[in-house]
Amino acid sequence: MTIAVVGGTGPEGSGLALRWAQAGETIIIGSRDPQRAAEAASKIREQIRGAAGVPACDLKISGTENKAACESAEIIVLTVPFEVQAEMLKHIKPALRPGQILVDTTVPLAASVGGRPTRSLGVWQGSAAQQAAELVPESVFVVGAFHNVSADLLHQDGPVDCDVIVCSDDKQAAHSIRQLARKIPGVRALDGGKLENARIVEQITALLIGFNIRSKGHSGLRITGLPPEAYDI
Amino acid sequence: MTIAVVGGTGPEGSGLALRWAQAGETIIIGSRDPQRAAEAASKIREQIRGAAGVPACDLKISGTENKAACESAEIIVLTVPFEVQAEMLKHIKPALRPGQILVDTTVPLAASVGGRPTRSLGVWQGSAAQQAAELVPESVFVVGAFHNVSADLLHQDGPVDCDVIVCSDDKQAAHSIRQLARKIPGVRALDGGKLENARIVEQITALLIGFNIRSKGHSGLRITGLPPEAYDI
Repeated sequence: MTIAVVGGTGPEGSGLALRWAQAGETIIIGSRDPQRAAEAASKIREQIRGAAGVPACDLKISGTENKAACESAEIIVLTVPFEVQAEMLKHIKPALRPGQILVDTTVPLAASVGGRPTRSLGVWQGSAAQQAAELVPESVFVVGAFHNVSADLLHQDGPVDCDVIVCSDDKQAAHSIRQLARKIPGVRALDGGKLENARIVEQITALLIGFNIRSKGHSGLRITGLPPEAYDI
Repeated sequence: MTIAVVGGTGPEGSGLALRWAQAGETIIIGSRDPQRAAEAASKIREQIRGAAGVPACDLKISGTENKAACESAEIIVLTVPFEVQAEMLKHIKPALRPGQILVDTTVPLAASVGGRPTRSLGVWQGSAAQQAAELVPESVFVVGAFHNVSADLLHQDGPVDCDVIVCSDDKQAAHSIRQLARKIPGVRALDGGKLENARIVEQITALLIGFNIRSKGHSGLRITGLPPEAYDI
């Protein structure tokens, strides 16, 4: 499975790429500028080589232009700010193929239009994830996930103390992305139900940013009170 | 401090009343029917007496009609379904006095109008809590809290594995309610910022209900990654 991280030079994208590369996944960092993408991939490679116990030969991480990155991937993870989400999806659309999974991590923060990062925008379709679903071919499976995972924690050493709530209308695609989420140490993945539920998960990020501002932390969330199999399916 | 629980015969209200009475708070259960309110108070009293180590003489729990319950309370906790929230606030309004704190726990679930409990309704003011603020005198401090605490867990023995996110435009009132939340064993209370943020906290409940349905649990949430003082202020 090859994972393209569109907007992979940004904090969230590069953090996810780092964690998945560490776990042995094949990663292509996407960027508008292929040179920047290649540099980001090199940086992640050096970062992992620097850490103990990871054999350099196991690292499968490269970088290229966003659309090219999508062409050779089974999973495409979109990690761009909301204000460029629709534009980016239109740009990569010609590269999308039936059966690919598009993971949307976009949060429609009011900061996208000069407002506060603790407030969200109303999206006509209900959520950024549903907007994404409208902008890709129907044969591409859209999944909303990773909205609540702190980019700072992804870049730090150690496990990430956060659950990932995965929303999709396609059960098999959601299952694949829950498996992928669990490759990040510390992360538990949960079935968040249909894609429409991404509207709540996206908004939680605005709340977490408020906690971070008030308390100077890198907040995440854990869902409690569920049987162990809820985190394991 | 006397706490009136409006709609206190319902699952969430009686659960909160039980936990606070156990902690030694003075509780008045409110109901449309004063007889039912008195019975609910008796039931909670017996329940606590049945448990070890709680001296009966310490229990200060009674029941009366909703409006009457509000008259002698410093804190009023509204625990009614969304479909009767506005009507109930209009009913108790004549009993409200300057300086009282109204804690709104209402979640605008689509189930209120025959829809799903995993979906929420759009409230014109932004949230049920902001609707409550519009319906009470300006001299009453409105706080949104306890939306995500499982009624089932409140009624079970043992600590409640859930954080309570407290939203209010009045810092002192929010502080008082965070203190009150911490009287429930297991609960940590967090500053959720302004009342407008209640819109996110309310919607989280719809997401939690989805987890409960899919996994047969009593879900709650914990916020991670904040310094200890964030849970303590």
